[in-house]
Amino acid sequence: MTGKNYIGSSLSAMGRTTYKTFNPQLNLENPTTFTEATAEEINEAVQLASSAYKVFGTMSGAIKALFLNTIADEILALGDTLIETFCSESGLPEGRAIGERGRTLGQLRSFAELIEEGSWVEASIDTADPSRTPLPKPDLRKMMIPLGPVVVFGASNFPLAYSTAGGDTAAALAAGCPVIVKSHPMHSGTGELIASAIIKAAIATAMPNGVFSNLNSRGIEVGQQLVNHPGVKAVGFTGSIRGGRALFDLAAKREEPIPVFAEMGSINPVVILPKALQNKGESLARTYANSITLGTGQFCTNPGLLLGIKNEALTGFISDLAHEIVKIEPSCMLHPNIVGAYESNKQKVVAQPGLTVVANYEMAVQANYARQVVTTVEGKTFLENSTLHQEVFGPFSMVVQCDDADQLENIISKLEGQLTGTLIADAGEAKEYPELIKALQNRVGRIIFNGVPTGVEVCASMVHGGPYPASTDSRFTAVGINSIKRWVRPFSYQDWPNELLPDELKNENPLGISRWLNNKQTNSKI
Amino acid sequence: MTGKNYIGSSLSAMGRTTYKTFNPQLNLENPTTFTEATAEEINEAVQLASSAYKVFGTMSGAIKALFLNTIADEILALGDTLIETFCSESGLPEGRAIGERGRTLGQLRSFAELIEEGSWVEASIDTADPSRTPLPKPDLRKMMIPLGPVVVFGASNFPLAYSTAGGDTAAALAAGCPVIVKSHPMHSGTGELIASAIIKAAIATAMPNGVFSNLNSRGIEVGQQLVNHPGVKAVGFTGSIRGGRALFDLAAKREEPIPVFAEMGSINPVVILPKALQNKGESLARTYANSITLGTGQFCTNPGLLLGIKNEALTGFISDLAHEIVKIEPSCMLHPNIVGAYESNKQKVVAQPGLTVVANYEMAVQANYARQVVTTVEGKTFLENSTLHQEVFGPFSMVVQCDDADQLENIISKLEGQLTGTLIADAGEAKEYPELIKALQNRVGRIIFNGVPTGVEVCASMVHGGPYPASTDSRFTAVGINSIKRWVRPFSYQDWPNELLPDELKNENPLGISRWLNNKQTNSKI
Repeated sequence: MTGKNYIGSSLSAMGRTTYKTFNPQLNLENPTTFTEATAEEINEAVQLASSAYKVFGTMSGAIKALFLNTIADEILALGDTLIETFCSESGLPEGRAIGERGRTLGQLRSFAELIEEGSWVEASIDTADPSRTPLPKPDLRKMMIPLGPVVVFGASNFPLAYSTAGGDTAAALAAGCPVIVKSHPMHSGTGELIASAIIKAAIATAMPNGVFSNLNSRGIEVGQQLVNHPGVKAVGFTGSIRGGRALFDLAAKREEPIPVFAEMGSINPVVILPKALQNKGESLARTYANSITLGTGQFCTNPGLLLGIKNEALTGFISDLAHEIVKIEPSCMLHPNIVGAYESNKQKVVAQPGLTVVANYEMAVQANYARQVVTTVEGKTFLENSTLHQEVFGPFSMVVQCDDADQLENIISKLEGQLTGTLIADAGEAKEYPELIKALQNRVGRIIFNGVPTGVEVCASMVHGGPYPASTDSRFTAVGINSIKRWVRPFSYQDWPNELLPDELKNENPLGISRWLNNKQTNSKI
Repeated sequence: MTGKNYIGSSLSAMGRTTYKTFNPQLNLENPTTFTEATAEEINEAVQLASSAYKVFGTMSGAIKALFLNTIADEILALGDTLIETFCSESGLPEGRAIGERGRTLGQLRSFAELIEEGSWVEASIDTADPSRTPLPKPDLRKMMIPLGPVVVFGASNFPLAYSTAGGDTAAALAAGCPVIVKSHPMHSGTGELIASAIIKAAIATAMPNGVFSNLNSRGIEVGQQLVNHPGVKAVGFTGSIRGGRALFDLAAKREEPIPVFAEMGSINPVVILPKALQNKGESLARTYANSITLGTGQFCTNPGLLLGIKNEALTGFISDLAHEIVKIEPSCMLHPNIVGAYESNKQKVVAQPGLTVVANYEMAVQANYARQVVTTVEGKTFLENSTLHQEVFGPFSMVVQCDDADQLENIISKLEGQLTGTLIADAGEAKEYPELIKALQNRVGRIIFNGVPTGVEVCASMVHGGPYPASTDSRFTAVGINSIKRWVRPFSYQDWPNELLPDELKNENPLGISRWLNNKQTNSKI
């Protein structure tokens, strides 16, 4: 561990601003000193990425796949050092580190498979018709091409799966976009290890220098400079609404605005219908006590809002939930800053008029451990106070007791955009609430039936994203192979000579990919 | 013709601001008085659209297709009145009116075909695996759903094909988004006629009221209010860089930012390689004289920039082009304002040091007719003066004489984003310039071999869009069936009961569409 930046394949530490990461379990700084990237280093990383793009952007899927698979191999080869560093910088347990590494490798390999097969480019061919009247029809062929250098911001809550070689990076590299990572200051060591694996893989597979850089930063300046750099063509971010919105605003104000895909906050409303509550309230309370506290409430999908219709069963559920949740051992948060934010956001919400705290873990806990809290409030009070709609990042949830289904629907329709919405219903019960379901669907990117929102399956049918502020562009997902679409644009060749076309669009279909040929899907040649 | 707004199916004219359209051929105002929409009317149109979305957004493809096809029928039923109004408000000839109507009907019918077939929703199903360890795999199913009410700005240069029932409107309605058109003030009569056809079709096919509204406006306020309205979820615009950027900026500053797809200016560079120039310079001069002046230079794809390497053949080509272009009869522009802008932009460019005017139609012309101009400049001069890179909307072009291929490539790489780039090359010649072609590709959305950029084929393989400022989001096309993707977002159902799923995602695949089932494409049921 050097504490330096990777500017392409070179380690560099020209700056004077330094910092250390923190071990929240031990409540101590970690030993390595990291040096923040300077304006010059940032500029050099972008210049290298722009040059690399000219070569990398047109490399074959097979070669890029080899690169991605080699990154996965190199990450695995980091062995226990990676797992230990992950734990020491996040306070998360070893099992989580191993699981998240598995997810990271799985993502890299699934993008490798996607681009090796090759049909993802949405190739489309309309052949010429020179005899058409009044005008002859030209030959047109279209496919997706990479946007250019992409900046990825590491996420505090996923040091591996949504950081240096995480979903955004894997998708951008798969697309053919060089990546510059703005490393997260809470886990710069984990970041450097992963960066070293990527650089090794880049060298081993003869990628152009600059296909990847990793920049340390303590504050917001490095990120701002990156987003403002004319050579940067798109941005991926996972984090707070304030942070994501600031980057979105910067990017929108550029002379050439660029897309920012920011996956931000979410309180993930859960609607519990009356019959289901009657029949399975107790097991539901256990399930939800676990989902609220999973990962110390530090997932984007923890359920922060439970909505039911006021009755005895709901009162019983609230008491069961309170009972279950205090049974759970508190766990460590990622960083003292996150504990601080949790405490102050919690205080702010708890201080609102009309709110009742029903569960509050009161025993002493270790430094940086978070105590879970469940609160409850009347529907009317919730509707009138937008402070209650804000995310409290951590093991916190609120049960809203609505007067009736109309008020419940009204509350849902007034929520900000969310990643997920969950419906808890008995057999046949959901059919009775079509308008409520529509209202929920209109506010979210993914809707779950009789489950919990935590647990984001990585697959083609996953949507992780949603109406603002769940994400800045609901037209894309941040998880799953389709997240590659954030980093590409369609490009069309008109009457282009066959031998100069990319393989994906040649008459003979040398890659054997599935293409649209005169509006029919086929793997055949022309 | 009433001069009123359509607020849903109701004609309304509550405002006091009125205006008339103008016949540029006769240099006279047209008789109808149009009333600009008021803030109240705008709000009512958006409210109606939001209510309509709840119903329209989940209607079947077959019903929406019937609506689109009925719109096409009703437009055709407007008969000569439409053609005459089009001509009287645009100065364009009858043949163009009929051609553009054909294009408009073709677009509506091709979207109808797309949604009736139904596979466009990109349905994807990953089935559950309850026995997976460590965690069971949930059932996930994804498809595209409409964003919500869309505002479409009519384009001055396409009163039919990119205005009231043009490409943006057809794509948004096909997607399931209600549309509010901000009618273009230069052709509000054409707009009202088309709006009446849409409203008739909406009533005949039992669409919810508010699925379509048409608002008159003379200035920028109506458009600004629409883009700022919280009920509006996306915007489509075709027009100037200034106008498109202003809307983009407004939308980005909203509390909930929304996507703006603006297709803006382009000078459509044409690179003429030396051998091709040697062998076909003369016919090329004729072809380009026609392409530069096509539609009085009022297409987004007219070639405003021709790039060659300085030699005798290029000198000869410039003289041939000058000779050919003055043979063409000047034609009428859309409006005195557009003539005024053409004249002042032309003067501004022509006044730049180092620029030579080589062709200038000098004979007297009718009022509102535009005189074509061709200019030439050295590569170095062009590189140093960004004023020369700006679009002059009208029959204007510039030939840049480059010192060598390196300078030519450098010039291309310094251009702003463009809709198209064209390469004129002899057999085998293109192969010698791979870097130059890459540079051109990097700046454009569509690349043409040995043709002209004018003529935008409506087909699945067309890309009309490109790096900023060709469009505000290069990840989408404005022309062709894939333009529907601008108005939709992916949505995911987890463990959702089969009977409550939309038909597109049900086990039995009742629509028989092509879906991804566990990463394989198939039309079969589960």
